[in-house]
Amino acid sequence: MSVYLNKGTVIMSNPPSIRSFAAAAGRMEGEGPLGSCFDYVSQDSTFGENTWEKSESRLQQHALEHALAKGGISESEISLLFAGDLLNQCTGSAYSVRDIGVPFVGLYGACSTMAESLSMASIFSDNGIGKYNVALTSSHFCSAERQFRFPETYGGQRPPSAQWTATASGCVVVEQHSAPPYVKSVTIGTIKDMGIKDANNMGAAMAPAAYATIKTHLENTGLNVDDFDLILTGDLGEVGTRILCDLFKKDGVDLESVHNDCGLMLFDREKQDVHAGGSGCGCSASVLCGHILGRIKSGELKNVLFTATGALMSPTLVQQGESIPGIAHAVHISAE
Amino acid sequence: MSVYLNKGTVIMSNPPSIRSFAAAAGRMEGEGPLGSCFDYVSQDSTFGENTWEKSESRLQQHALEHALAKGGISESEISLLFAGDLLNQCTGSAYSVRDIGVPFVGLYGACSTMAESLSMASIFSDNGIGKYNVALTSSHFCSAERQFRFPETYGGQRPPSAQWTATASGCVVVEQHSAPPYVKSVTIGTIKDMGIKDANNMGAAMAPAAYATIKTHLENTGLNVDDFDLILTGDLGEVGTRILCDLFKKDGVDLESVHNDCGLMLFDREKQDVHAGGSGCGCSASVLCGHILGRIKSGELKNVLFTATGALMSPTLVQQGESIPGIAHAVHISAE
Repeated sequence: MSVYLNKGTVIMSNPPSIRSFAAAAGRMEGEGPLGSCFDYVSQDSTFGENTWEKSESRLQQHALEHALAKGGISESEISLLFAGDLLNQCTGSAYSVRDIGVPFVGLYGACSTMAESLSMASIFSDNGIGKYNVALTSSHFCSAERQFRFPETYGGQRPPSAQWTATASGCVVVEQHSAPPYVKSVTIGTIKDMGIKDANNMGAAMAPAAYATIKTHLENTGLNVDDFDLILTGDLGEVGTRILCDLFKKDGVDLESVHNDCGLMLFDREKQDVHAGGSGCGCSASVLCGHILGRIKSGELKNVLFTATGALMSPTLVQQGESIPGIAHAVHISAE
Repeated sequence: MSVYLNKGTVIMSNPPSIRSFAAAAGRMEGEGPLGSCFDYVSQDSTFGENTWEKSESRLQQHALEHALAKGGISESEISLLFAGDLLNQCTGSAYSVRDIGVPFVGLYGACSTMAESLSMASIFSDNGIGKYNVALTSSHFCSAERQFRFPETYGGQRPPSAQWTATASGCVVVEQHSAPPYVKSVTIGTIKDMGIKDANNMGAAMAPAAYATIKTHLENTGLNVDDFDLILTGDLGEVGTRILCDLFKKDGVDLESVHNDCGLMLFDREKQDVHAGGSGCGCSASVLCGHILGRIKSGELKNVLFTATGALMSPTLVQQGESIPGIAHAVHISAE
């Protein structure tokens, strides 16, 4: 049975295994520095569908199908599927799996969804609830832009702090088993709102939540920053990463030496016009599932604190003058 | 440790207790047949706020505050909060709790959220994860109408199959303890889509999901319809209730004698102009927390299968000609 420590931290008693994982992505992500890691890359942003929302569901299906195939299991063997995405009513996920008859726990954690869903799947598996629990999420640049900011055809200018929503998806299959990677513990984050009102500065809105969750996780588990090969935040981008490292520096902690951010890894910011970096549920999901989990499995990385971050940003509330709450959930994934 | 049976059914090994519960509602719900049951009724739909979205968050805070006060616990004692609502980016919940520093698991299950959140809170408590786990949800007529259908000021006509989104909220505090009501088992539902495309006929979109989940729950647990005093669906309304009972009748099962629907209970359909009945996350939440849980606690009701239903309805996808997927989750709540 998992042990609840304090303020959202849950320690696995029999750390569950990640049986398989897969990432799917769009053309631009495929041309980025991690392009060769993905299980599926589409040269066509539509993924063969006639609306961006349906494209996102199709993209998500690719990640799910590859993760199941790599794990050698079928859809009907899934015990519980934990999934969500950025679209209103989380339709990216609901429409992606509506025909496969799988018990479905819909989540909303904005860009933190990969960590939220993986936390839930891992806790369920640690307690023997279900044989194969699946965590799944996605984002699509075109469906996100028109929903959260402006339709693509509007041609709006993007400020330097803006991030580029990744067209990508990640899927993880968790089970009770003895093979790395293991999920050793998680911290479910609390909402932090430092008053950021700029929908083009998500990094700043999320950084305080990442700081709080990582700090809570370290305090509760008694681990230090240097117990990890990598503390990997979701999609803080350049602005949020700077804020996060500064916050730890004030505590006398050098985070920078073990930190990286999925938003800074997915694209080549010199050559690809993504401004402050990548974002979206699919950003941290595809970096985790395409690039990181394989390196943990092989033992190249021993301990990673995967901390996906989400801006719970609503255009409606931003238009009403409200600030943007952030959240972050942390998952300690280990080779040992 | 909870036991996963099959197709989403989870049996509690040490059925957790519902420590406290509360419901808050708007004026119209307060004037309905259950009005006297609610812990808080506002005569003002704005709940003192200047936008409908903020009104909904304030409404939700009333339910949370009353549930905590009745349970004699403080916000800081909450282990995990499972919450969601109908608003885009689930802002009803995120903004309601952003200042209280509670570990937050955001959910999206549309109007099924009370059953989804109560399922999660119960499974966590059954496995000893957290001392007090809280399930929380809400809906508000005005914020929902303008988001899903038309702004109130448009004055659109409502067809007879349309339901009235309740301005209401419910909150349940779950713990490991020995006092009724107990949560004995849950079934996490699968998505069902029978091709309904009418955003004013949510009952028909959700009824097949309710049928599938109730049937799965009964098959997996070996219980029969008449093992329950009440099989309570979320908000099928008149149209969906008729479809649900017909589907069971085809199986030779008389559901009608033990069935009721929160959407048919919340309002007086003779005197209140709600057409096919109530709906919204807050409909089943307030009926459960205001009217049903107290009767289980007192022993008046012995076994209730609370099956909240959700239409995963997106205006964007409906405008694209897509049909509306439904989902339902079942929670067996018992006095014994």
